[in-house]
Amino acid sequence: MSKSMSEISTDRRALLGGAAATAALLGAGVSSASAAPADVVAIRKAAIAQQAEAIKRLQDWIKLPTITAEGVNVDTGPEYMMNLAREAGFQTVKRIPTDGTDGVFATLDVGAPRWVGVYFMYDVKQYDPKEWDSPPLEGRLVDKPGVGKVIVGRGAVNQKGPESAFLAAIHAFKAANKKLPVNIALVCEGEEEVASTHFKQVVTHPDVLPILKKCDGVFIPFTAQSATGDITIQLGAKGPIEFQLIADGGPSGMGPKADIHSSEKARVDSPIWRLTQAIASLTSPDGNTPMLDGYMDNVRPLTARQKDLIRAAAKGMNEEAVKKAYGVTHWINNESFEDSLIRLTEQPTINLQGLIGGYTGPGGKSILPTHAEAKLELRMVPNQTYEEVSKKLRAHLDKRGFTDIKLNISGGYDPTETDEKARIIQSALAAYKTMGVNASIFPRLAGSWPGSVFTQPPVAIPALQYGMGFGSGAHAPNEFFVIESANPKVAGYTEATMGYVELLYAIAQAK
Amino acid sequence: MSKSMSEISTDRRALLGGAAATAALLGAGVSSASAAPADVVAIRKAAIAQQAEAIKRLQDWIKLPTITAEGVNVDTGPEYMMNLAREAGFQTVKRIPTDGTDGVFATLDVGAPRWVGVYFMYDVKQYDPKEWDSPPLEGRLVDKPGVGKVIVGRGAVNQKGPESAFLAAIHAFKAANKKLPVNIALVCEGEEEVASTHFKQVVTHPDVLPILKKCDGVFIPFTAQSATGDITIQLGAKGPIEFQLIADGGPSGMGPKADIHSSEKARVDSPIWRLTQAIASLTSPDGNTPMLDGYMDNVRPLTARQKDLIRAAAKGMNEEAVKKAYGVTHWINNESFEDSLIRLTEQPTINLQGLIGGYTGPGGKSILPTHAEAKLELRMVPNQTYEEVSKKLRAHLDKRGFTDIKLNISGGYDPTETDEKARIIQSALAAYKTMGVNASIFPRLAGSWPGSVFTQPPVAIPALQYGMGFGSGAHAPNEFFVIESANPKVAGYTEATMGYVELLYAIAQAK
Repeated sequence: MSKSMSEISTDRRALLGGAAATAALLGAGVSSASAAPADVVAIRKAAIAQQAEAIKRLQDWIKLPTITAEGVNVDTGPEYMMNLAREAGFQTVKRIPTDGTDGVFATLDVGAPRWVGVYFMYDVKQYDPKEWDSPPLEGRLVDKPGVGKVIVGRGAVNQKGPESAFLAAIHAFKAANKKLPVNIALVCEGEEEVASTHFKQVVTHPDVLPILKKCDGVFIPFTAQSATGDITIQLGAKGPIEFQLIADGGPSGMGPKADIHSSEKARVDSPIWRLTQAIASLTSPDGNTPMLDGYMDNVRPLTARQKDLIRAAAKGMNEEAVKKAYGVTHWINNESFEDSLIRLTEQPTINLQGLIGGYTGPGGKSILPTHAEAKLELRMVPNQTYEEVSKKLRAHLDKRGFTDIKLNISGGYDPTETDEKARIIQSALAAYKTMGVNASIFPRLAGSWPGSVFTQPPVAIPALQYGMGFGSGAHAPNEFFVIESANPKVAGYTEATMGYVELLYAIAQAK
Repeated sequence: MSKSMSEISTDRRALLGGAAATAALLGAGVSSASAAPADVVAIRKAAIAQQAEAIKRLQDWIKLPTITAEGVNVDTGPEYMMNLAREAGFQTVKRIPTDGTDGVFATLDVGAPRWVGVYFMYDVKQYDPKEWDSPPLEGRLVDKPGVGKVIVGRGAVNQKGPESAFLAAIHAFKAANKKLPVNIALVCEGEEEVASTHFKQVVTHPDVLPILKKCDGVFIPFTAQSATGDITIQLGAKGPIEFQLIADGGPSGMGPKADIHSSEKARVDSPIWRLTQAIASLTSPDGNTPMLDGYMDNVRPLTARQKDLIRAAAKGMNEEAVKKAYGVTHWINNESFEDSLIRLTEQPTINLQGLIGGYTGPGGKSILPTHAEAKLELRMVPNQTYEEVSKKLRAHLDKRGFTDIKLNISGGYDPTETDEKARIIQSALAAYKTMGVNASIFPRLAGSWPGSVFTQPPVAIPALQYGMGFGSGAHAPNEFFVIESANPKVAGYTEATMGYVELLYAIAQAK
């Protein structure tokens, strides 16, 4: 049951459904944190009028995937991003060179007292068209039972869909002839999916840093709503280190130069065995507890307040639905849902993404392979750092005699954290409240986003993920973003657009 | 420098070169163990006359690869084998049904007092044409610098080349109108490359077993010569168990049903981690010492005589050449060559053939994969057995809580051993001596062949690998078998053919 455009109310307080739904959603005493209702109504009208155009813009963007890991569209991607910014009315739009895929920086200065930063990733994850029900670069509009009309494509939710909705908000201000309540600094990268390897070069660029430092904070457009419509603001995120461990008999001398007959294992070192043993040394025998030397040294335990936030959040979640979504029957060690959430938030991880080496066809083949590779990633919590743990990885391997195992760190950054009292966090809560959404705060996202590049010196401003709307399938086939929602509590495209309008007003008016 | 056919002497004593080479090769007091020289000269003349036809027969056979692991030509392969036997003059030729790829059994009863068994594998290893310099099924004749004219193709040396040379010997007897000195029982299988899974069904078939039990012994046609022309008769071989370990989150419940976002590792069991830890538990941290519970219980150490044989053999080998051939700089633990040979012979192995699971493309991808597979094989020594160790594998995993890891044993058999005093061993030594070849005995091949199906009850006859000639690249690209040898001490195709003629006479005349 998807909702048609004509049914959508223009009353922003009722934007998530009819009057009855609105009454149910809004708690007592909710007051508007935003501008004169008439302005918002006009902007909303413009957003509705421009929705088809905005979706076309999103589809066109999906057609041009930038995939830095594969060197795909690494030059045209930033140019396209620059055009999107220009079309939205940004006054200065610059390509920021890096040692990898370039960044983009754009400003829209309306002379407002406050600045806000907006962070875009214009790159997307790799995809395999064979696994998709519709072509991953088509951006096809599909009716998804129980969800609504959705756009399906690589980048639909991660992150072009929400980002296009933010751009649609800027277009709507202009179309409605309303002045933006804040100035905007838009900072974009094309390496988010390779752990933002060179993004620090973008934010510290002399044209970028002084403006970012003026900002109240920075947010990434995001589908913050769950399937039920509730929102959780993550006050931080883990920091990843993505790396590959490679065993190669030739260069290392610890094994044969080419695959040889397997009977020689008795007297010849095996690169693939050495790799297996090296990676096995990184966790406990059940694969659940990190055993990397010194990894836990700087882990700051959650505070009582942080644990309270988690327990409160757990009450609002449906454990069985979460298990079903992840296709699991239990949490590790058969822990309770609450404990699993605390672990998800507090524990740094060592994840094994993939293994490849030797013979991989059907059955077996009696070779002693010369080469094998493991792909892993760590996710760290404060106060672990990228630099510290990178060094510990090499030291751990060397201490065990695995000097022959090559460590290739392909990306990473520090964990991020923002104080719940920060003005932009309070502005976000106020905006959600205005829209009648049930929003809470949560200590930390188990995933990662490069907020630390903003929250740490030299930028040192609050950072968060913000946005109305829903989608799923990031990094997976059939990734989607909701355009028209079957659930009145979940925002469709225009409602997601209006979520950004409300935030900009909230920031302008926050105390 | 390859030798042209016309240069090849018809004097069998000089078959490996000119008169001078022959004099150098033959020790003092070498006496013929075979038939009247005139008979052998006539057979040799026939073999030379038929060589082109025999090579064409080999090329045609190479064109039809039977690969049981991939289900390739599993029905036409045995039919083709039956035709080859019929053409060679075998009187009874039967297809022996098995639960896998069928076997073939053929007899050639000339009323001689003695029977000898000949074992053929008609299947070949998988191949990837992209890795080959000439098409793997063409059987192209190529000049290989320093080696001579060789036939290149899948199965060229392992094992169709030597087998076709044996068939050529039978054809030559017929063409020369000479009576075979022994009766021949030819037993063939199409599953050697999948660890002879159903071969016991062939040898114990009621049409097969009574005849095999009458045989002096059984041999597989083989390129026993090294690149220098010397020969080592292996008195045994290790017995393999080939298996795959598979971790699958869905069926096992120990992990997600599909790949999920890697951040969930904190609270979700990881099938690929569990697989890694399970396989890591099978060896010491350097990957060199088997740690499978109870694996070493029944390992019978080498006897003093066996070690003496190894030390004597070591003196005749060139360590640097062996290292170069295997592309290694050292033996494990920097052991001496002699110690490496003792280890190669005495130590059962646990080899990791390959790993595949999760993301395997360039760089990384933040998934927690649902599926991973490891391919391994063990090689056992007496008195370890297939049945005993198969059970220990499962028990080892279960004891460590890896009940979720699926164990798929794709094939295997017991180690094999033949007494050096067995008449067929002495016959082989005599035949080699007749041909002026420097032949010695060695306790055990580090590789495997399913000799145990013959050496153990109910067949219980001696078994060996026998044959003149040289080749390389079994299981590898550009596999070849020498047709015309650049080294006068190494047999070409006709000399390899004559090696079987000499063996049959030696068996007939042995005391």
